[in-house]
Amino acid sequence: MDPRVEEHAEVLVDWSARIEAGDNVVLSVGPDAHELAVAVAERVGERGANLVTTYASGEIDRAYQLGHEGDFDADPAHERALVEHADVCLFIGGGRNTSAAADVPATTREAYNTAHGEIREARMDTDWVKTVHPTRSLAQQANMSFAAYQEFVYDAVLRDWEALADRMANMKTILDEGSEVRLVTEDTDLTMRIAGRQAVNSAASVAYDSHNLPSGEVFTAPTATEGEVHFDVPMTLRGERVQGVHLTFEDGEVVDYAAAQNEGVVGEILETDAGAKRLGELGIGMNRGIDQFTDSILFDEKMGDTIHLALGRAYESNFPAGSEDEANESAVHVDMITDVSEDSYMEVDGEVVQRNGTFRWEDGFSE
Amino acid sequence: MDPRVEEHAEVLVDWSARIEAGDNVVLSVGPDAHELAVAVAERVGERGANLVTTYASGEIDRAYQLGHEGDFDADPAHERALVEHADVCLFIGGGRNTSAAADVPATTREAYNTAHGEIREARMDTDWVKTVHPTRSLAQQANMSFAAYQEFVYDAVLRDWEALADRMANMKTILDEGSEVRLVTEDTDLTMRIAGRQAVNSAASVAYDSHNLPSGEVFTAPTATEGEVHFDVPMTLRGERVQGVHLTFEDGEVVDYAAAQNEGVVGEILETDAGAKRLGELGIGMNRGIDQFTDSILFDEKMGDTIHLALGRAYESNFPAGSEDEANESAVHVDMITDVSEDSYMEVDGEVVQRNGTFRWEDGFSE
Repeated sequence: MDPRVEEHAEVLVDWSARIEAGDNVVLSVGPDAHELAVAVAERVGERGANLVTTYASGEIDRAYQLGHEGDFDADPAHERALVEHADVCLFIGGGRNTSAAADVPATTREAYNTAHGEIREARMDTDWVKTVHPTRSLAQQANMSFAAYQEFVYDAVLRDWEALADRMANMKTILDEGSEVRLVTEDTDLTMRIAGRQAVNSAASVAYDSHNLPSGEVFTAPTATEGEVHFDVPMTLRGERVQGVHLTFEDGEVVDYAAAQNEGVVGEILETDAGAKRLGELGIGMNRGIDQFTDSILFDEKMGDTIHLALGRAYESNFPAGSEDEANESAVHVDMITDVSEDSYMEVDGEVVQRNGTFRWEDGFSE
Repeated sequence: MDPRVEEHAEVLVDWSARIEAGDNVVLSVGPDAHELAVAVAERVGERGANLVTTYASGEIDRAYQLGHEGDFDADPAHERALVEHADVCLFIGGGRNTSAAADVPATTREAYNTAHGEIREARMDTDWVKTVHPTRSLAQQANMSFAAYQEFVYDAVLRDWEALADRMANMKTILDEGSEVRLVTEDTDLTMRIAGRQAVNSAASVAYDSHNLPSGEVFTAPTATEGEVHFDVPMTLRGERVQGVHLTFEDGEVVDYAAAQNEGVVGEILETDAGAKRLGELGIGMNRGIDQFTDSILFDEKMGDTIHLALGRAYESNFPAGSEDEANESAVHVDMITDVSEDSYMEVDGEVVQRNGTFRWEDGFSE
């Protein structure tokens, strides 16, 4: 077996999920993620934990959902019982076609997801971690050769996470102590309130309240957003290529929007509900193992030299215990990304903390 | 999709498992059984049932079990909860290597199985059905080309099950009303008591208390076995090729044994426990869609013109409610098969019911 697969499994089991003897583990495996699943199973065994393996196939989901007529049963008891008795849920993505379920009507998919709402909540109550095994289909989505994509994934995943967590702690401290963030790029000048919120040092481990591998971002929940922001990183939203999104905020809410490609998709998202017009997240990408965009939010939003904002739902983890603020609520959480490697800076309370991708505690930083 | 795959799914869901709206279904999928799983998922959706898909991989089992040290936890709560809340469990075998877990020590595998005993019992309490999707690895085990093996599987599975169930009902009646069976072939002359037992018409449907697809056998639980029996069909037992097994019974128990190849394996099986020396099953193969041996008990024992006997555990389904007889108990249930297409007959209470593979109610039967 490729030693990088073994290392990936080790990071997932030990650093990310912190699996211990007696833990009840549900391992969800994509159709082409078999090899990583085998390596993970060995380590789950070595730790003395208990394993149930489920199969996550877009083709099976599609066949089931298209076959089904009428309402979906709410939270089927067997699936619910499995998740409620699990301590850890690991998701290893990796199929043969990222568009496998592309012809399932959005209403059907949403109806299925809504009917499984309590199961999803129960899953989020476990020590869950999401990762991917590099597959040819994901390489294709990233517009990369398979070999290059493998390198890309392992560069992103096989980090010195302890050291990265320490560096990210600097940014968390700045955001925790700050009240206002200002982001400036060539086409962006945006201010957001962050007072009273707590930043999450998302270091790819449940010990850091972080559930993605790779991760490598620090994020908080902004409010009272004012100004304009331009997102120059292309992405696929609802199956469509969206580029050059530009949003104008007043009093925390989007009042104007435009996009160079598929503007209609942005409009649809904004129309979802009241919360979809407000920001749920400000995230600072700090994983320098990720050095190119691959049209996958698992990687793109963690890339060093990027900042992302999400329209919609905010995370509870950004609200300290006892906070009277309410997290922005929405059915959506849509991340959009800006490259900040050039002609850009971020201020917290009037002080520049990042310029052209370099942080204030790093060599080469200029105020 | 190959229309035979669609038909296989239809037989499995409707004839075998009788899936209905609201049923909680667990679908277990082998690594190369994806295509049939997709076809099954569509029909599970169409019936309005609920689906959880699990992944059954010999490589994952091997990695987990070899990684694990010390005792396995007894019946992990998450796996147990899943099965206890399931109405139907479907098992679609089909991997890439039938020897995937060959180097797991038998003691480790047994320890794992023992620790999962209550989960296994709970699974047997559901409407479970076991089938296989034809894979290249199974074709190889059968010593057949892939195309020929596909034909073989679909010939066995895509039967007129209703008509076969009717024909098998004749044999069930004969066995239910009979007291003693005598089996005679060139090297066999064996008598068994079957009085007070009930035969199972195993018509590949939970409605017939039958849990294999394909099936097509009628079986009962014999006792007081006397005489000699020769099994001329080769088989793989505990990873070894075993041929030409010859057993001598006195007072229901094996008192002498021999084999042309790997006799030691037969000895090991007989030494398992007291019940391993006694018969647990007499089965009459009646599926004429199966016309060759493929070294797979799922198919071999159902083949027309064969009779099989199992050493070890008897099935409760052969004991009528209120019966005071006790089913033979053993940790093993090992089927061995005899070709009865030539130079053979079977008598029930002195009357010939099958000669050279032809039953008494069929054309060409000669007393």
